[in-house]
Amino acid sequence: MNGARALLATLSANDVTTCFANPGTSEMHFVASLDDAPDVNAILCLFEGVATGAADGYARVSARPASTLLHLGPGLANGWANLHNARRAHSPVLNIVGDHATYHTQFDAPLQSDIGSIATALDGWHHRTLKANDVADDVARALAAAYGPPGQVATLIVPADVSWSDVDEPAHWPRAPRAGLRDVRESDLDDALRALRTKRTALFVGGAALDEAQLTLAQRVVSASGARLLMETFPAIVDRGAGRAEPERLIYLSEFAIDQLKDVEVLVLVGAREPVGFFAYPEVESRLIAPDASVIALAVPGVDTRAALEALVEALEAPEIAPRVGERVNAPSGPLTTQSFAAAVGATMFEGLIVADESNTSGVHLFGATQFAPPHRWMTLTGGSIGYGLPVALGAAVASGERVLCLESDGSMMYTLQALWTMARESLDVTIVGLSNRSYAILNLERQRVGATRDGATSARMLELDDPSLDLCALARAMGVPAVRVESADELVTALRRSYMTPGPAFIEAVLPKGLS
Amino acid sequence: MNGARALLATLSANDVTTCFANPGTSEMHFVASLDDAPDVNAILCLFEGVATGAADGYARVSARPASTLLHLGPGLANGWANLHNARRAHSPVLNIVGDHATYHTQFDAPLQSDIGSIATALDGWHHRTLKANDVADDVARALAAAYGPPGQVATLIVPADVSWSDVDEPAHWPRAPRAGLRDVRESDLDDALRALRTKRTALFVGGAALDEAQLTLAQRVVSASGARLLMETFPAIVDRGAGRAEPERLIYLSEFAIDQLKDVEVLVLVGAREPVGFFAYPEVESRLIAPDASVIALAVPGVDTRAALEALVEALEAPEIAPRVGERVNAPSGPLTTQSFAAAVGATMFEGLIVADESNTSGVHLFGATQFAPPHRWMTLTGGSIGYGLPVALGAAVASGERVLCLESDGSMMYTLQALWTMARESLDVTIVGLSNRSYAILNLERQRVGATRDGATSARMLELDDPSLDLCALARAMGVPAVRVESADELVTALRRSYMTPGPAFIEAVLPKGLS
Repeated sequence: MNGARALLATLSANDVTTCFANPGTSEMHFVASLDDAPDVNAILCLFEGVATGAADGYARVSARPASTLLHLGPGLANGWANLHNARRAHSPVLNIVGDHATYHTQFDAPLQSDIGSIATALDGWHHRTLKANDVADDVARALAAAYGPPGQVATLIVPADVSWSDVDEPAHWPRAPRAGLRDVRESDLDDALRALRTKRTALFVGGAALDEAQLTLAQRVVSASGARLLMETFPAIVDRGAGRAEPERLIYLSEFAIDQLKDVEVLVLVGAREPVGFFAYPEVESRLIAPDASVIALAVPGVDTRAALEALVEALEAPEIAPRVGERVNAPSGPLTTQSFAAAVGATMFEGLIVADESNTSGVHLFGATQFAPPHRWMTLTGGSIGYGLPVALGAAVASGERVLCLESDGSMMYTLQALWTMARESLDVTIVGLSNRSYAILNLERQRVGATRDGATSARMLELDDPSLDLCALARAMGVPAVRVESADELVTALRRSYMTPGPAFIEAVLPKGLS
Repeated sequence: MNGARALLATLSANDVTTCFANPGTSEMHFVASLDDAPDVNAILCLFEGVATGAADGYARVSARPASTLLHLGPGLANGWANLHNARRAHSPVLNIVGDHATYHTQFDAPLQSDIGSIATALDGWHHRTLKANDVADDVARALAAAYGPPGQVATLIVPADVSWSDVDEPAHWPRAPRAGLRDVRESDLDDALRALRTKRTALFVGGAALDEAQLTLAQRVVSASGARLLMETFPAIVDRGAGRAEPERLIYLSEFAIDQLKDVEVLVLVGAREPVGFFAYPEVESRLIAPDASVIALAVPGVDTRAALEALVEALEAPEIAPRVGERVNAPSGPLTTQSFAAAVGATMFEGLIVADESNTSGVHLFGATQFAPPHRWMTLTGGSIGYGLPVALGAAVASGERVLCLESDGSMMYTLQALWTMARESLDVTIVGLSNRSYAILNLERQRVGATRDGATSARMLELDDPSLDLCALARAMGVPAVRVESADELVTALRRSYMTPGPAFIEAVLPKGLS
């Protein structure tokens, strides 16, 4: 038995049974070993950013790691941007990065590079295995690191000779130890209760605290105390929809977020970190809470958010609350706008749908239009690294076996469009709405905000995507995904409903007015 | 005048007038400043790997740096793989990477990351500018570093507040100092001459020694001394074609390269490093020369190769040689195979054509079929990082204003296909032959070589690209590039000739037999 086989056996022993792969020569023994590991589902991706984003999506919906399989430094680098999003989502992800044989590195062959530094920049765990006999233990250590809590990106660099060399018998497949969540500190709990009772307080929820049960607990806390319930702007995944508690979402634009938070005297963190401006802007504060407000870090990522919320409920003797009710939006008609797009989504969703939202400026009305849609889960761009939507939707579909709705802007889609091919190959139930506004609309907004307002023809052209226009449908079809183009809200409603009833992936190009709208 | 404007003015003062850009919020002041810098040609790319590969191609054909414009850590990471190829090509490249404002980094906002470590892994030069007043000098230092010699990747990290803050007047635009090539050491020259006179010697040329004049000098040296003339396997750019000296190319496969070199007692390096196996393989040596052979590093990258060759010619009193003559291949007819594909290319090339070759297994007959084609330049995959072809062709077309022929395998093309959109947008004269063999054929070869020969259905499927099939023509057309599909050699010849006579980009999908052929 060689190292590659031992690696796969250890993955299996730890129930890591999905591998998003873009292999090369140094990973060929891993690939060959797949034939001896029928419980490992290896899914081929045509670009590494697809593989890593898929692993992130897999982790978000299942709270379990998938592995990636990447080819040396360039493979890890190509996957880095979506690993950055996974890091910010606290997704447990295990990267297996093949490398040159240990004795070959001294020769600085063309593909030799400093993989360690690329991994270092992911701020997670990384290690290079040097002997076939160590690979099983190293995989278990990597998985333990990936699980956290909080979850993180673990990268195991596996030289080719580690993969092809024999391991000593009897081989063993260690189970990764699982650390528990850290306990809430009593003093923080006391501080939070005092604030809830005496100050204008907001619970700021995020991260692992966004499932239905915890959101209900949080709602009970704020209902009993008169506090506000706020949610981080970009949650990894949140339970939403009719009957579920819906926190007020912190606004993306710093100026508005500062206004939104100006009356909060105490912000109590539950699963989230203190909010800060996504970018800095001239004359705008980076910190968003009022200068004299205070923050209580009751349960930062890695701390037991559920226990924190239960303790608050108990101490406040917070009564149960009636499920939130409201009217679902009607199916829209007429021209396709950001409003009618949002309504079309809200009017057609069904219970259990998972949404991967990378709609950016086209999606400003989505949260409002979907709040009373049937219960669903919603994922967002945690790390700001563009091109997350299609890969995360892919991974979420693999992990859940449920339909995923991917709302994807045209500019963002172009970073990782290769995901469409894998969706077709694996016959995944993913509906993609490709939002065509032929513009980096968010940058047109941002350049006003930073005061970069020259407005000349040269700079304006750097933000336009309509010369030439991208035929999003043709791109999808070229990679095997059936596609339809819609130019009205009615057509979008019909196309969404049809896609939900048709197995496999479906691409809908939704033609919106150009630019910001 | 703000820092961004000072940055652009310094680029202009150093004749760096092309910027391959994929900007975000932190680069908006740079973008706005383009309106005041009419001599800077900013070219929008839809993915950062396109921008960096284009900068590499620009440098290969012009020996001058272009700049890139990238968005924080994810932008640099997305561009990293093609920067790795640029590093191995010794291409001077200047990355401008926007970052959060200096005072914002302490808050660890979502897009915050360790850009320095990503840059470190490029093994070049990198620096973070901290004040607007420093940016002009830092750009000049970065350009000096990029030029080398040898050329390298220089990365300047520019925080947003450095871009938007005013610089003190009077502003200045320093010219980057240019270091000269290092001199050849007399002792190395003596050693090389002694070897050429007394041993079975080979000149091993590469890097900067591959222009027509130097190859002629090298040919005179070996003709006068009875030595062999060998070229590195993956040159950045080499002058080739009828009348030009054609060195024997070192074979990619280690086993064959070892056999090719087995009689060489002394290898004299001119512009190249000592050859090593591209990968390690069980039971195959990493070093390719014979165990008792010796290496004379006469002119490694950064040393004056031309002076070295001239000194050898002079010492050997090597006579001038007649231009090499041979018969150009005829235009092929019949089925499309790797042989007829190569012949079609060789039979239709014209003087001055620049070739970007990422044909991999489909290109094994190309060098033979093109050796007596009209004089041309040929670029290859220096760093082994897949997805270099389309971006490098794009950059080469921008730098040269000449037509570029990009020979691109289907699997490789999918890493950076977004380059097609920029080719259409800029109406660049690029002919792309998309080689469809519906397979990672090179990996089918490599897995045999590493002995990973399980040959089960699962592992085999990881190397197949025909489920679903990729419609390469549709991909090209969807991004604005006219496309035609050819299934015979005759059709390919016609399509190539037509593309050479038609301004703008043209995509030709060449359907080859599946897999290795």
